[in-house]
Amino acid sequence: MKTKGKITREKILEAARELFNTKGFGATTISDLVEATGMQKGSLYFHFSGKDAIAREVLEEAAKKFMGFLGQALGGDNPGASIDNFFRCALDKHLAAGFVGGCIFGNTALEMSDSDPEFAGIIDRVFDEWIARIATVISEAQRTGQIRTDILSESLAKHIIATIEGGIMMSRLKKDERPMRECLDTLRVTLDLRVL
Amino acid sequence: MKTKGKITREKILEAARELFNTKGFGATTISDLVEATGMQKGSLYFHFSGKDAIAREVLEEAAKKFMGFLGQALGGDNPGASIDNFFRCALDKHLAAGFVGGCIFGNTALEMSDSDPEFAGIIDRVFDEWIARIATVISEAQRTGQIRTDILSESLAKHIIATIEGGIMMSRLKKDERPMRECLDTLRVTLDLRVL
Repeated sequence: MKTKGKITREKILEAARELFNTKGFGATTISDLVEATGMQKGSLYFHFSGKDAIAREVLEEAAKKFMGFLGQALGGDNPGASIDNFFRCALDKHLAAGFVGGCIFGNTALEMSDSDPEFAGIIDRVFDEWIARIATVISEAQRTGQIRTDILSESLAKHIIATIEGGIMMSRLKKDERPMRECLDTLRVTLDLRVL
Repeated sequence: MKTKGKITREKILEAARELFNTKGFGATTISDLVEATGMQKGSLYFHFSGKDAIAREVLEEAAKKFMGFLGQALGGDNPGASIDNFFRCALDKHLAAGFVGGCIFGNTALEMSDSDPEFAGIIDRVFDEWIARIATVISEAQRTGQIRTDILSESLAKHIIATIEGGIMMSRLKKDERPMRECLDTLRVTLDLRVL
């Protein structure tokens, strides 16, 4: 059973996650968190030392959740199908959110790369693991003849992730799924992706 | 000759541009601007009605400057060379800045897409013009046999811009040119770009 303290912490983290992702970390104040949770400021400070501590936990939880998502999304019948499935799951995920919020790692990367080395480090590790996991499946798909073999799997993995992040950015700006969908369709063609 | 008022306005805009791009718009306060410019708060408010008015002008100036950059970068000896030159100029631009700041339009897109429709609109028009100008050169390169023809020029243009934005994001996070450089090299191969 969850303790009352744990339930309160989760409530704070959930409100923070939503505020950071839509308003940005910098623009979110403790007062915003007080308003969103309906809690007293003192109660917030009882659970967390401040905004940074909340952000650190939000990012670490999001990272864990994202790795779980990645594991599921990459579970196709064959390596090419796994990449294709990952594309579909990524689009579905952002469609379900109505392209509000976008990718918390991409957002935080752009907002904090220059101002906060600690947060940049957390995000950097997420990107590195994301690249490594996609690259592993691409290597397998190259062996099974389902993806072009004239470019290294790691380069293709970075290329895919860059394109997805940029596609989310454009779809979020327009609140329209088409830019991201089109970027993924173009990737399928340029990768010579064969699903089998 | 520039009037004293114009010089002061430019000083404010320059400080704001740097703060917005490294700290983010949300995290930048009027006090930060007071500190960065060494001016009185009253003097800031004499020239601008507030942070939003400053941000609007920063974005509009950046858009004008970027379109000038794009015009130059896309001026190659032939359409394929223009695309290749644009890739090199984009990388050089961010290399020169040490991957600090990144792309002001990408940053603002991620920070303001959900919270500020007016700013999102300004950025959206920048992306639309960027896409249109790249697509025009790609169409020409497709006619001269310098870029693959099995994908529409507009889709390729969106794909290129998405990949560049994502590449900047990753290079900025690592303060390392390689992710962006690698993404551009991969694009050259996947587009079947021939420079002549």
